[in-house]
Amino acid sequence: MIPALFTDLYELRMAQAYRAEGMADQAVFELAYRKLPDRRNYILAAGLEDVLRFLARFRFTADELDWLRSQTGFPDAFVSSLEKLRFTGDVYAVPEGTPVFPNEPLLQVVAPITEAQLVETALLNMVHFQSLALTKADRIVRAARGRQVVDFGSRRAPGGDAALSVARATYLAGGHGTSNVLAGRTWGIPIFGTMAHSYIQAHETEAGAFEAFASLFPETTLLVDTYETLEGVQLVVDLKKRLGNRFRVSAVRLDSGDLAALAREARRMLDEAGLRTVTIFASSGLDEYQIAHLVEAGAPIDAFGVGTKLAVSADAPELDMAYKLVEYAGKGRFKLSRGKTLHPGRKQVFRQMRDSRMTGDTIGRFDESLPGTPLLRLSMLAGEIQPQPSLEESRHYMQDQIAQMPDKLLSLAAAATPYPVDFSKRLTEDLESLRSRTKPDPQPIPAH
Amino acid sequence: MIPALFTDLYELRMAQAYRAEGMADQAVFELAYRKLPDRRNYILAAGLEDVLRFLARFRFTADELDWLRSQTGFPDAFVSSLEKLRFTGDVYAVPEGTPVFPNEPLLQVVAPITEAQLVETALLNMVHFQSLALTKADRIVRAARGRQVVDFGSRRAPGGDAALSVARATYLAGGHGTSNVLAGRTWGIPIFGTMAHSYIQAHETEAGAFEAFASLFPETTLLVDTYETLEGVQLVVDLKKRLGNRFRVSAVRLDSGDLAALAREARRMLDEAGLRTVTIFASSGLDEYQIAHLVEAGAPIDAFGVGTKLAVSADAPELDMAYKLVEYAGKGRFKLSRGKTLHPGRKQVFRQMRDSRMTGDTIGRFDESLPGTPLLRLSMLAGEIQPQPSLEESRHYMQDQIAQMPDKLLSLAAAATPYPVDFSKRLTEDLESLRSRTKPDPQPIPAH
Repeated sequence: MIPALFTDLYELRMAQAYRAEGMADQAVFELAYRKLPDRRNYILAAGLEDVLRFLARFRFTADELDWLRSQTGFPDAFVSSLEKLRFTGDVYAVPEGTPVFPNEPLLQVVAPITEAQLVETALLNMVHFQSLALTKADRIVRAARGRQVVDFGSRRAPGGDAALSVARATYLAGGHGTSNVLAGRTWGIPIFGTMAHSYIQAHETEAGAFEAFASLFPETTLLVDTYETLEGVQLVVDLKKRLGNRFRVSAVRLDSGDLAALAREARRMLDEAGLRTVTIFASSGLDEYQIAHLVEAGAPIDAFGVGTKLAVSADAPELDMAYKLVEYAGKGRFKLSRGKTLHPGRKQVFRQMRDSRMTGDTIGRFDESLPGTPLLRLSMLAGEIQPQPSLEESRHYMQDQIAQMPDKLLSLAAAATPYPVDFSKRLTEDLESLRSRTKPDPQPIPAH
Repeated sequence: MIPALFTDLYELRMAQAYRAEGMADQAVFELAYRKLPDRRNYILAAGLEDVLRFLARFRFTADELDWLRSQTGFPDAFVSSLEKLRFTGDVYAVPEGTPVFPNEPLLQVVAPITEAQLVETALLNMVHFQSLALTKADRIVRAARGRQVVDFGSRRAPGGDAALSVARATYLAGGHGTSNVLAGRTWGIPIFGTMAHSYIQAHETEAGAFEAFASLFPETTLLVDTYETLEGVQLVVDLKKRLGNRFRVSAVRLDSGDLAALAREARRMLDEAGLRTVTIFASSGLDEYQIAHLVEAGAPIDAFGVGTKLAVSADAPELDMAYKLVEYAGKGRFKLSRGKTLHPGRKQVFRQMRDSRMTGDTIGRFDESLPGTPLLRLSMLAGEIQPQPSLEESRHYMQDQIAQMPDKLLSLAAAATPYPVDFSKRLTEDLESLRSRTKPDPQPIPAH
């Protein structure tokens, strides 16, 4: 779990200033992203479980405070004021697995300004990557069209906690499990894995390795591509001949080469040998595009192990996500920074449906009554976590969410027209009124 | 720190099999990457410090073993055998900050096969992302040509571990520090930060916010783009007029819009007001390409805050990196998987130099005597960490390494011809001899 000291220095400097200025009123911060990455039609919100645990446990340890006192130049009185600081605010959020669109707040923090400010870095860190990972996992699972998907990404995930997040995201998205034992334990999700090339290599012959492993784990998957894939498949066929009814190998795994061609030939060889129940598991740098291609080409692959591309969200490793002040002391706050305009005031997202499908969202004031279902739900009240769904419940919830999506958004490419999201009339008026009252029109920049 | 249970299930299955088969001989595993990402001419090795700490502390806790016993179906005798398991092997590695090229082992583990096998997932996880992050940080720092570079990436780093790694990598690469307080404490590196937009927004006027902050932190940087950048700069000029000699603001920060044009105009306004010592700090989705562009365009920017693109290594978030068995029980082991051929035997990398510049590498047998400096150095002996450089020493070492690089490799684009790396004659013969002795030529795949 991320500690309270995981914060940007400016959060502490601002906290010091707020204290010096006697600014302790309630603030509303909203977390949203500004722009969809290429080839994404929605982002699936994630990270809420970690956010709530972080906030519930938020405190600076004596050790951290000593360090702040002695090493950073922060005045004693300020550091002492951090001692009893807890997160006492409310959090509204969309449930994990909810599709969200640009500018829609997916998390809203309502708290005294110092509390809300200090947690910015941690909250963004948790929500940003986990949302990208869940979005990527969803694409991969959907591309597999019902075939098994297992997360193999831990070795190339960007850090240990990222590996755990990716394993959880894969399961949440409808994947079957992970290779990571710690993740299996942490999230209570199925763990998969049999053998690596090293096991084959450490034996004098590939056939000997297969036989030894299958005698210990009769229903194993055998990895067949260490030397020459189709010869590996032939060795599996030979093993069947030797073991007869004792043969219970459940799958072969292909991990290199032209997977479609190899899978077809392997299938033919296995079928000819009467091994119709031996399935084909494929891995090797797979992502949703390659999986979709294999599935469309009719490659007889029954399950996919997906690693690196999933673990780093390779084609969309970043999201322009920010945590912005929209209200302080009961007044709407805004921003006009070029390309980063922020509407003022606490918001709600209203999602309209027709025939069980999403038809459009309106971002309105929090207290507006607009058509549609409000997406932001109370998740923490006065620092207390409100009842949250289990991982299984979130998994079902997300399936339902995907089922409600307009078909065109489910493409792996960018939809011709984006999902309709607009700001309510009142919110637009609030921005215009603040803009005209406080600032002249933006000036053109002189050319030099 | 990553626990021992952070491993892929197949590592444990193989360990169980090795035990059942009485295979306990010494293995040599080597960690290397197969292919440079686009626009990279080298990868800078990193992650060694974490790897050594992980191996030195490697053990399964009683709690983990209880869970394995009760929840995974592993037999008692095997789980009990893990109780006393420690990493007792040797590690050879290139120092952090060493440029490495495709197929060059950058880490070599020599240990009983079970120990070496079980740590695969963790070792790759640590080295893969940290090497990418260091490589990205180096590009960004070099693009800035001596201007300050500060890591602002924690909020969008893929997880908490990644944020700390990126902060460390930035400093190692010659950057000036990080915004992350925990990273500053963890690595003992400088921490930077002043104010966010929220601070400005929470005040009734931008001018009021500037004045309040500057009175508390006289030498602060003021963030000027919340509403309209050049008006923000004008407010800084006005503040000077009001404060006179008490004005000590050190910089303005631009965080949106056309940074080159805004920096020029801000510089002109500041200079006209006699504020020549007020520097310009820029941020906003920057990477090495944009920084190089700003520097080449002569934009009067003195320092860069770099966030997301650094923290996720945006244009190269993955590396085809693997940890492969090359020797077991004194015999060379190899692989012929398509596109993933592995030369057998324990290796060393010999780097040749001329006039203090690198001219080419040869990957040879570990016991060969070839021209050049051997890169793999003893880093752990029988489970004991050998003396390692401090972060400052590694930072200097890396500067020297970059200085030894051929100029053409320092381009931000792919060099026309790659750095020359070849396999020694003996290593090539070893592969050919194993290939011809054990396997026929690869078969073409029948077309279907």
